[in-house]
Amino acid sequence: MPRVGILMGSANDYESTMKAAEDILAKLDIETDVRVISAHRTPDRLVRFLAEAEGNGIEVVICGAGMSAHLAGVTAAHTTLPVLGVPIDSSPLQGLDALLSTVQMPGGIPVATFGVGKSGAKNAGLFAAAILAGRDPEVRKRLEQFREEQSAKVPERP
Amino acid sequence: MPRVGILMGSANDYESTMKAAEDILAKLDIETDVRVISAHRTPDRLVRFLAEAEGNGIEVVICGAGMSAHLAGVTAAHTTLPVLGVPIDSSPLQGLDALLSTVQMPGGIPVATFGVGKSGAKNAGLFAAAILAGRDPEVRKRLEQFREEQSAKVPERP
Amino acid sequence: MPRVGILMGSANDYESTMKAAEDILAKLDIETDVRVISAHRTPDRLVRFLAEAEGNGIEVVICGAGMSAHLAGVTAAHTTLPVLGVPIDSSPLQGLDALLSTVQMPGGIPVATFGVGKSGAKNAGLFAAAILAGRDPEVRKRLEQFREEQSAKVPERP
Amino acid sequence: MPRVGILMGSANDYESTMKAAEDILAKLDIETDVRVISAHRTPDRLVRFLAEAEGNGIEVVICGAGMSAHLAGVTAAHTTLPVLGVPIDSSPLQGLDALLSTVQMPGGIPVATFGVGKSGAKNAGLFAAAILAGRDPEVRKRLEQFREEQSAKVPERP
Amino acid sequence: MPRVGILMGSANDYESTMKAAEDILAKLDIETDVRVISAHRTPDRLVRFLAEAEGNGIEVVICGAGMSAHLAGVTAAHTTLPVLGVPIDSSPLQGLDALLSTVQMPGGIPVATFGVGKSGAKNAGLFAAAILAGRDPEVRKRLEQFREEQSAKVPERP
Amino acid sequence: MPRVGILMGSANDYESTMKAAEDILAKLDIETDVRVISAHRTPDRLVRFLAEAEGNGIEVVICGAGMSAHLAGVTAAHTTLPVLGVPIDSSPLQGLDALLSTVQMPGGIPVATFGVGKSGAKNAGLFAAAILAGRDPEVRKRLEQFREEQSAKVPERP
Amino acid sequence: MPRVGILMGSANDYESTMKAAEDILAKLDIETDVRVISAHRTPDRLVRFLAEAEGNGIEVVICGAGMSAHLAGVTAAHTTLPVLGVPIDSSPLQGLDALLSTVQMPGGIPVATFGVGKSGAKNAGLFAAAILAGRDPEVRKRLEQFREEQSAKVPERP
Amino acid sequence: MPRVGILMGSANDYESTMKAAEDILAKLDIETDVRVISAHRTPDRLVRFLAEAEGNGIEVVICGAGMSAHLAGVTAAHTTLPVLGVPIDSSPLQGLDALLSTVQMPGGIPVATFGVGKSGAKNAGLFAAAILAGRDPEVRKRLEQFREEQSAKVPERP
Repeated sequence: MPRVGILMGSANDYESTMKAAEDILAKLDIETDVRVISAHRTPDRLVRFLAEAEGNGIEVVICGAGMSAHLAGVTAAHTTLPVLGVPIDSSPLQGLDALLSTVQMPGGIPVATFGVGKSGAKNAGLFAAAILAGRDPEVRKRLEQFREEQSAKVPERP
Repeated sequence: MPRVGILMGSANDYESTMKAAEDILAKLDIETDVRVISAHRTPDRLVRFLAEAEGNGIEVVICGAGMSAHLAGVTAAHTTLPVLGVPIDSSPLQGLDALLSTVQMPGGIPVATFGVGKSGAKNAGLFAAAILAGRDPEVRKRLEQFREEQSAKVPERP
Repeated sequence: MPRVGILMGSANDYESTMKAAEDILAKLDIETDVRVISAHRTPDRLVRFLAEAEGNGIEVVICGAGMSAHLAGVTAAHTTLPVLGVPIDSSPLQGLDALLSTVQMPGGIPVATFGVGKSGAKNAGLFAAAILAGRDPEVRKRLEQFREEQSAKVPERP
Repeated sequence: MPRVGILMGSANDYESTMKAAEDILAKLDIETDVRVISAHRTPDRLVRFLAEAEGNGIEVVICGAGMSAHLAGVTAAHTTLPVLGVPIDSSPLQGLDALLSTVQMPGGIPVATFGVGKSGAKNAGLFAAAILAGRDPEVRKRLEQFREEQSAKVPERP
Repeated sequence: MPRVGILMGSANDYESTMKAAEDILAKLDIETDVRVISAHRTPDRLVRFLAEAEGNGIEVVICGAGMSAHLAGVTAAHTTLPVLGVPIDSSPLQGLDALLSTVQMPGGIPVATFGVGKSGAKNAGLFAAAILAGRDPEVRKRLEQFREEQSAKVPERP
Repeated sequence: MPRVGILMGSANDYESTMKAAEDILAKLDIETDVRVISAHRTPDRLVRFLAEAEGNGIEVVICGAGMSAHLAGVTAAHTTLPVLGVPIDSSPLQGLDALLSTVQMPGGIPVATFGVGKSGAKNAGLFAAAILAGRDPEVRKRLEQFREEQSAKVPERP
Repeated sequence: MPRVGILMGSANDYESTMKAAEDILAKLDIETDVRVISAHRTPDRLVRFLAEAEGNGIEVVICGAGMSAHLAGVTAAHTTLPVLGVPIDSSPLQGLDALLSTVQMPGGIPVATFGVGKSGAKNAGLFAAAILAGRDPEVRKRLEQFREEQSAKVPERP
Repeated sequence: MPRVGILMGSANDYESTMKAAEDILAKLDIETDVRVISAHRTPDRLVRFLAEAEGNGIEVVICGAGMSAHLAGVTAAHTTLPVLGVPIDSSPLQGLDALLSTVQMPGGIPVATFGVGKSGAKNAGLFAAAILAGRDPEVRKRLEQFREEQSAKVPERP
């Protein structure tokens, strides 16, 4: 049963960016539900998904979007689950538009924002795991092991 | 009966910015319906307002919001009426966040964006009038008169 | 008879960007008049075009330009028709120059601005249709159908 | 026993910004441990605090810092607890420096970033509560009640 | 008989900025013709002024404008006289909008741009004098004297 | 005998950018003296060039440089001839660094700045011609002819 | 005998910014020579100062300047002593202009750059001390003591 | 025995950027110790390296990192040796993130920052040599010779 929802505004965002969130969660043995949902083109689909999310076992929602990236903010408006935002670089402004659209949420409706692009998506996955780790010692163990291996893999010299 | 809806994310946005849209429309004898509706804190109120908007005579919607300004984009997702966005300067980033959040809409859901702050709100009002002028010769006459007076008021020397 | 004028500062802007406005309007069965008119190199041609625009049936003008993009602003100075601006990414500053030149119009002369580049051009076309829809039920029907098809085309999963 | 650590790089950051995180958590009845710890001037104090944090009941760490804001990143390097970063506007560059220093973490070490300044601090507090809500039904209830009250408080008109 | 035209988009730009151009030219004994002409609100007045400018003795035109600053570009489109642009800081974006609108002219229609605000206006005045100096030894002498005095006035220590 | 000096900080700047200034001046039959002079690596060469410039017939100096572009500013510090600056895009910051380094001169030492890159270089050449045109009717005639041809070359449709 | 030269482009830069460099060096018992030297208005004074600097005991030069901040770069072009640059916030662009003008030096002529404004000036002073500490154990001792006291002064709680 | 430590956050940073620092120091006959040390993934390795650095003969530390570049700041927090920071362009934001993360250090812990990318790395190497030159006449001689050769290599014409 999936514990983390991964939403993206366009199918194009998958290979370029959001697959990195799915991959790291798979590596940590955490099931995900990956969807294409556009805040602008399919707003009702988003509301439906969120209405059922908790019932379906979703504990964290990761939202990736580019340009005027509203997906994470609109998601956060409809749930009290933790919402993680990944700005995607998909316009000539190179992700600055998506970053500011995601991170500058007005007080009252939080979106946890990560870096622009693939490394942001990976970090959103890791952060979702860190949230789950607080209630699931197995996840914490795997997360800590990942971090140790990650450190060990840094070579001493280039 | 109001023809232009003026929405803003927070009551604070009225005096600082959005009143300028209301004022110019009043000057052109166009009725407005001014509301505080937050895309994030009152998303259902927005959907309700838009469901009834056309039935209530609304022909154009002006949306003002600051920071991660999603109000215009979410409005545009729920209506095919023309949606006009006014970015508001209400964070340390001085409106650049609201500008990019409003203008960089992905292809398919248009938001007509105006400048940051009061002059943008005034221009949104004038633009709403220009839309109405296309179907209402009285409005066109008043709009053209306004433009002539505006030109005449520019002094020759400082 | 064309209802929407599509102007661009340089012939290069057509394939890269402005054709997207023409295409979406063609898809919605709205005739366009596509012109190359430079605010700087052919200012008189612009004034002539605008003097005859209404008489020729033009109801909305879309202007695409890059760099110090003045075309939309100068157009708006000469007409009370709705003027839509599309900033084009054609300099090392990647469209930020064109965006600010187009959107930050001083109070009194409105330009409705859309996103930088192709998606902005498409949205300008859709927005022109939304304006016409207010006076033409056929256009509204086609616009609403387009929106429904657009939503339906978003895949459930990547 | 405190469940959320609130760290800030300088005592000046408290009144201007980070108190907003403490206040919202107090309102939700969640205990906090508020500390001044500079990543640059007191790096050892940070390591000590983090070594004992879990043992002391800390489940989430909120870090506020300005300029080259390294506090959240360095904290995340030393713990697998969820780390929340609040960029603070304390230089002529108005928080853009702190925002990019906090949010653009390289892949592997996540920092969940919120908006620049007071509203970001408030949202970090709310997000910490959302994390705790996943393991504590009392917190969820209070969080949902807060959200309802927040929506109800938005006035209909300015 | 005035040799330098000083145009500005709004009477407000005079005290804040453009008077600095007039003052330095007065100090160098060069007559100026100071006008309020808006590229957007009074486009015809601009064309009329430029049609007569050379006949009236104008050899250089200085244009100050804020926001989507089109005045210098439109001026340059109508004359082959040297056009000097002064971006004015009159929006929340603090003159970055005016700077890019003025300096990023497309190839073929040059605008010589100076810094944002008062020091830019002063430098535009000095540069106009440098142009005149090439054809008027009296002006060169006064300009060189000004530069020497300016150097001499820099104190050795703060 | 050359009337316009064209300086650039590095030989690499020639093909990419500054040749456009030389080309347009050649087209207008104005002789140029093209030099590689680095403000940083060959400061004495710059001082020597400028000491002899007027004696050698130079009436205008065009300076192209990238990054911390100091060439135009340092040139302006050593001469009262008109100095034209062309910011070059030669770093990851894409010319914004060179633009601000060139245009934001403190009051007292003017640099006339043009757009980033090739179109800026072309415009600097045209502007140099406009300066010379004030004292040389032949140049004015050729400049006006160029402008007319340029307008005529803009196609009516893409 | 002074070991550190502190240069600034304008006397106004002293109280606002550069005094912070002098103060921290005084606290560390390192003598300074504080001068107003403008790269643009007094270029010869700069060359003279630098020609004598080493002979006068100067081992490090700190340069503070705003806007198109060329002082540090021009200084570095004339000496192989370590040159430290402090960007000053003295224009509407809030120091971004001075930062990029100072830090983006082309390869071959290094300028060590510090943050915008007072904290940058203080850090430049501390860094000058760190350079001297490598050849002067007394300075190292004082520097280490300063760092310890600085850490000790950070309060545990706000 | 190495005198300059060259650290980088990732092995990828070597070929793209940091090798330029090693190369110029090799050319000046100064030994270096080149390491991959991530402030985030291997914080303990950094502390260990710095604890032994002085004992191992290190007199200057150069740190290159991209994105939220914390490496130089964290290094400076653990040593009073001069720390030189090189921002690396390794994200869609093109090094602006790394530049601000490196240069905007709060007062008290200095990092000497150089330009983004390869030319910044080269300049950091040259600056390290300039520091060593103050205590080592051989290095000064080689540095001065390098500078002379560098000047001589600038061609007179492109």
